[in-house]
Amino acid sequence: YKIAVLPGDGIGKEVMEEALKVLDAVSEKYSIDFEVNKYLFGGCAIDEFGKPYPKETEEACLKSDAVLLGAVGGPKWDDLDGDKRPEAGLLSLRKSLGVYANLRPATLFNSLRSASPLKDEILKDGLDVLVVRELTGGIYFGDRGTEKIDYGYKAYDTESYTTMEIERIAHIAFKAARNRKKKVTSVDKANILDSSRLWRKVVNEVSKEYPDVELNHQYVDNCSMQLIKDPSQFDVILTSNMFGDILSDEASQLTGSIGMLPSASLRGDKVGLYEPVHGSAPDIAGTKKANPLATILSVAMMLEYSFDMVDAANDIRKAVNDLLEDGYRTPDLGKGTILNTEEMGDMVVKYLK
Amino acid sequence: YKIAVLPGDGIGKEVMEEALKVLDAVSEKYSIDFEVNKYLFGGCAIDEFGKPYPKETEEACLKSDAVLLGAVGGPKWDDLDGDKRPEAGLLSLRKSLGVYANLRPATLFNSLRSASPLKDEILKDGLDVLVVRELTGGIYFGDRGTEKIDYGYKAYDTESYTTMEIERIAHIAFKAARNRKKKVTSVDKANILDSSRLWRKVVNEVSKEYPDVELNHQYVDNCSMQLIKDPSQFDVILTSNMFGDILSDEASQLTGSIGMLPSASLRGDKVGLYEPVHGSAPDIAGTKKANPLATILSVAMMLEYSFDMVDAANDIRKAVNDLLEDGYRTPDLGKGTILNTEEMGDMVVKYLK
Ligand SMILES: CC(C)[C@H](C(=O)O)[C@@H](O)C(=O)O
Ligand SMILES: CC(C)[C@H](C(=O)O)[C@@H](O)C(=O)O
Repeated sequence: YKIAVLPGDGIGKEVMEEALKVLDAVSEKYSIDFEVNKYLFGGCAIDEFGKPYPKETEEACLKSDAVLLGAVGGPKWDDLDGDKRPEAGLLSLRKSLGVYANLRPATLFNSLRSASPLKDEILKDGLDVLVVRELTGGIYFGDRGTEKIDYGYKAYDTESYTTMEIERIAHIAFKAARNRKKKVTSVDKANILDSSRLWRKVVNEVSKEYPDVELNHQYVDNCSMQLIKDPSQFDVILTSNMFGDILSDEASQLTGSIGMLPSASLRGDKVGLYEPVHGSAPDIAGTKKANPLATILSVAMMLEYSFDMVDAANDIRKAVNDLLEDGYRTPDLGKGTILNTEEMGDMVVKYLK
Repeated sequence: YKIAVLPGDGIGKEVMEEALKVLDAVSEKYSIDFEVNKYLFGGCAIDEFGKPYPKETEEACLKSDAVLLGAVGGPKWDDLDGDKRPEAGLLSLRKSLGVYANLRPATLFNSLRSASPLKDEILKDGLDVLVVRELTGGIYFGDRGTEKIDYGYKAYDTESYTTMEIERIAHIAFKAARNRKKKVTSVDKANILDSSRLWRKVVNEVSKEYPDVELNHQYVDNCSMQLIKDPSQFDVILTSNMFGDILSDEASQLTGSIGMLPSASLRGDKVGLYEPVHGSAPDIAGTKKANPLATILSVAMMLEYSFDMVDAANDIRKAVNDLLEDGYRTPDLGKGTILNTEEMGDMVVKYLK
């Protein structure tokens, strides 16, 4: 298997080192070879090539079975123009790979339950939500512009979806629900938006192919409340690029440990892009305080979705779960036996063996 | 003062009765006459006139100093087409009054602190956020459409803002912050959207006129996390129509008592639209369980913003606070001396006197 590794900026580089250690351990344990190559992406690529997603990186990513990404961005590049910033690279990467389905599980490890900002009584039925966010359409990629008018300017962006775009992401959500609690909540703003009305219609159509999966619809404003009020009502949340950006971050925060959350971006075949949900955290870069577990758990998602190595993926998850139960923590996870980034990577490898 | 009262549907009618009782008590106490007239709006107007915001209602609203609204909607009208539904009336009402600034305070009454879904340690510095949401622009009112394409359909909506629209809502937010903790957090998605980049630029310009107010910017996804992680960092949140819809509902839910939350929609002069944040709750309509306090506190906002009766407004707030301290509750507020809708209205009047 060919993996393009994009460590990125800030703590991205640091957590990636640990993730690759874990990948090595898996390689040994399962006697499978991974061809791992690193490429510049994000701020460091801007420094070297003047753009966040240089041609060389793109070519390598397009030829790989999976792309593993750390995190990008930092104050150094914050004042650049929109299309020259690290984030622009992220959008181009998603678009060029065609990974239209962003899967972001928000789960609470039992031993980290106290980290959640929510009261225990709300968490009594746990928290295990998978946000399936459309990733290559909607207002992120629609027509936009700014024009001079009589007084000042007028700027616009276009939210747009086609039947095909909605169908394919809906299939991903219903299939994911089949392996979980068999419930999809589709989130839109169909009382206002034409794109949402089409969204709802197409999702209803697709749902007919999954009679074993329950479907309900929520308006986005209501969903932002329900997530806080009663998160255990959710299994899979299916939504647009923009709403998914907001709701998946909200769901992540409910776990209280965003340093633990992986993500996968898929496109229906085996190719995928895997990255932690957290950012490049310039404030703690270089201090060895970064939590590598989100990236390590992203490796697990890669093994499962791109390489069909479900056992290896579960091994990693079990290792992480067990070491947390035994009290090992990075500083962001609260009280326990505190490890630095490197020590935490080593600990996962140790538990894996 | 001329007030157009639109009780609406479901519990809207019930809570409005109590709000008008309180208004009567204020009228008596301060020897001020209010001219109160009721009009059909929402589902009940659809039943009578075939549209949610009939001409007669519109004419009356436009001639009034303030509009007091209960809540609209219900299952009976859920299957109607977009432009014939109760919600469409809400949009037309906002637009026809020109109330471009929606003020939604999310505050936690001390005696209801335990109702919040958030842990005590997160609430130790309280929760007192005012969301200032742009209400007559953005994707709610932009160009939209659905067209047939080769395979299925393509539907689109346009998010658009002009310098003028952003300036006037920014002024409202900075002025509101001056009477509070002097901090504005402007929320956008300027790393992606052109409309957000204009938004940020104009807000920065306007902020120069308010050197005493601190301004910071947050991306909407980050704000949805920060609200849960550390709500006490916020004073005034200034944002667009769509983001405000989501974030104000999220902030409301953090109080745990949405039955307590009022709102005001303003336009720079004294005219305003006042309504509770909660909906028409068809499930409890007719059971006398509805909490009238959000509507009663909306009356307080009306007295303050439209009629400059700050003392009367504070009297109402003190009455509500005191009766809560004394343990009186509607069923949605948890344990205490439980009152029904009518009894709660009477209790506010009693504490007012
Ligand atoms: C950095 C930004 C462009 C990006 C997004 O909005 O998609 C991020 O918030 C995310 O969720 O991956
Ligand atoms: C009912 C709906 C159209 C409305 C909105 O989205 O503005 C509501 O959610 C609100 O916030 O007042």
